[in-house]
Amino acid sequence: MSSDQDQRMGARHSLHRQPASENQTISTPIAFNDTSVLVLGGGNFGTCLADHLAAMGNEVTIYARDQKVVDGINNDHHNVKYMKDVVLTDTLKATSQLEDGAAIQAATVIIFSIPTQHLRDILAKTKPFVTKSHLTIFVNKGIEIHSGKLPCDIVEEVWGKEIGECATYLSGPSFAMEVVKRQPTCVSVASRVKERALRAQAVFHAPHFRVYDCDDVIGVEVAGALKNVIALAAGACAGLGFQQNARAAIITRGLAEIMRVGVKLGADPLTFSGLAGVGDLFLTAQSEKSRNYTVGFRLGRGEKLDYVLETLGSVAEGVETTKAAYELCHKIGVESPVCDAVYSVLFGGVDVKEAVKTLMSRDPHAEFHGLDLGASKK
Amino acid sequence: MSSDQDQRMGARHSLHRQPASENQTISTPIAFNDTSVLVLGGGNFGTCLADHLAAMGNEVTIYARDQKVVDGINNDHHNVKYMKDVVLTDTLKATSQLEDGAAIQAATVIIFSIPTQHLRDILAKTKPFVTKSHLTIFVNKGIEIHSGKLPCDIVEEVWGKEIGECATYLSGPSFAMEVVKRQPTCVSVASRVKERALRAQAVFHAPHFRVYDCDDVIGVEVAGALKNVIALAAGACAGLGFQQNARAAIITRGLAEIMRVGVKLGADPLTFSGLAGVGDLFLTAQSEKSRNYTVGFRLGRGEKLDYVLETLGSVAEGVETTKAAYELCHKIGVESPVCDAVYSVLFGGVDVKEAVKTLMSRDPHAEFHGLDLGASKK
Repeated sequence: MSSDQDQRMGARHSLHRQPASENQTISTPIAFNDTSVLVLGGGNFGTCLADHLAAMGNEVTIYARDQKVVDGINNDHHNVKYMKDVVLTDTLKATSQLEDGAAIQAATVIIFSIPTQHLRDILAKTKPFVTKSHLTIFVNKGIEIHSGKLPCDIVEEVWGKEIGECATYLSGPSFAMEVVKRQPTCVSVASRVKERALRAQAVFHAPHFRVYDCDDVIGVEVAGALKNVIALAAGACAGLGFQQNARAAIITRGLAEIMRVGVKLGADPLTFSGLAGVGDLFLTAQSEKSRNYTVGFRLGRGEKLDYVLETLGSVAEGVETTKAAYELCHKIGVESPVCDAVYSVLFGGVDVKEAVKTLMSRDPHAEFHGLDLGASKK
Repeated sequence: MSSDQDQRMGARHSLHRQPASENQTISTPIAFNDTSVLVLGGGNFGTCLADHLAAMGNEVTIYARDQKVVDGINNDHHNVKYMKDVVLTDTLKATSQLEDGAAIQAATVIIFSIPTQHLRDILAKTKPFVTKSHLTIFVNKGIEIHSGKLPCDIVEEVWGKEIGECATYLSGPSFAMEVVKRQPTCVSVASRVKERALRAQAVFHAPHFRVYDCDDVIGVEVAGALKNVIALAAGACAGLGFQQNARAAIITRGLAEIMRVGVKLGADPLTFSGLAGVGDLFLTAQSEKSRNYTVGFRLGRGEKLDYVLETLGSVAEGVETTKAAYELCHKIGVESPVCDAVYSVLFGGVDVKEAVKTLMSRDPHAEFHGLDLGASKK
């Protein structure tokens, strides 16, 4: 490592934190030595995080199953499948070897950027090699369809509580293509173990990539999973020709619904006002760059779901998530009019206009009606 | 009143409310007789609310100082200054007479749609005639510059506690031009007296104009005042060429700042996740239809403030509010990096790029750092 790199990383890894309250003046410098990073998953988001960390001076390897992706990164500094036009940081490496455990054993930080439906598999494959000393960071969002479980639950189930509870979860408004262009981005990172959240923060934090720590894993995970359902609804509203008042309303009422679910599962209601909640909703539920918003928009315009999904060219996780979310809400007894409406359109053959009409004709009530604050663990 | 009107209003004024929890099944029908409405202020928002209520079958009169506006509404069903292209509901009337008290005495509902800096005057003028039996609804937002006070504080100060505390405050994502086009819109209405919030809800609620009640007047008022500061910041980010991650981040971090201020003043943190908080921010801080966003955008592009304000063609309340908000935050000891940055650009001669750089180079910290939950009255 060059002395230049050394200096840069010294600055990054020895952060003077803000005091917890404006009246306190104690700063706690924290130093970590997390420089060897393995990113599991060579999709858009995995690639952009790997590029970011490599550019910060870390030794970073991407694991991807596709040998072409691996070769493209190693030989040409390009991901041939995602973000094809981007020249990646030249120190970034890739491998298609995972099962021998060598890549995991060589890493101090492991980032899981794997679709939620494949998470259980990769957790099982990595289990023999992952130790408590690894800093593990999960960036996938969603609900496992067959079990109705959140990623954090699957992690603890497969890895066991001792290693599982040390995991960290990164979330927030972060289009990969903007991260790779060093556009200013803020995310939050949650862990049940505060020291782990702070380590993850120290690994990622840069002036253009600000990381806020929090301890509410459930809140961050519920927000990340359900925002895609709201993005579908917001897109459908726009597709139907509704304007900005309607879109802001559906997003806000959707947020109230996400809060009801999260709080019922033990989340802190405040988390939903943060980057993983409101922040990601702002991004996902109003941008044509969001696949779920686009699916909703095209449904609102009158296209059929099958045709939309066939011609989308990529996966809209929100469609599967809607099914899981619908079942979850009914199982835990949380009122979920927005999710119910999206479900009725996607899987119940209900016309999108009818679904909106049903939503709009509900009786008036109090804004946080049904939010069971007694369920929050905070 | 025609029997047709009678029927429609009967339906509207006898609402079966949702129970407070999904386990309760008690419905409480509430009947009111609020049919005579006076709207003070013939601007965009006052006009659209007056039109909405007239279309619902109420007798509605707009008070405007400008005789041309009054004549246009009475003779031609047009507001000659605002929303000129809109044909208003034909039963809508207007008057320029206020000081004789007749219009107030004839009304059961009075809506105040007056800029915050003129609120004190109109409150003094109406004081001799307003009684506790009037349903009063305030829709203006902001902070009074010379006193640093919120509208709700000014109302209680001028009218006294007994009548003042019965006031209701309507807020939420509602561009006037969309309301007048019957675009779906959701707002919240807050009052310290629950029965008053429910009355206001019953007056306004319609399938395309959904009204949620809440009791957190301070929260709704703080959110409404400070969102314009965040809209300026979000606009500046976009003007500087920052993309969607950055915009979502500045809005979310701005929301955290609004929450800190609100909670310090006694608001419920949850209110900021609602229509008056997140909902209005969604609308105001990302749309070119928002004047404050536009001012920020043009500053971000490098235009000078004086030139922007001269050529804007209307008032951007956020500029004055920034001054009041800056003073308020420092007076009550709340950390306000976004407001400070906007203030430094507007009034401190700081280059907008420098201000953003300062914001982005702050130390990392916990997401709800500085939120003093002990201060919340809830």
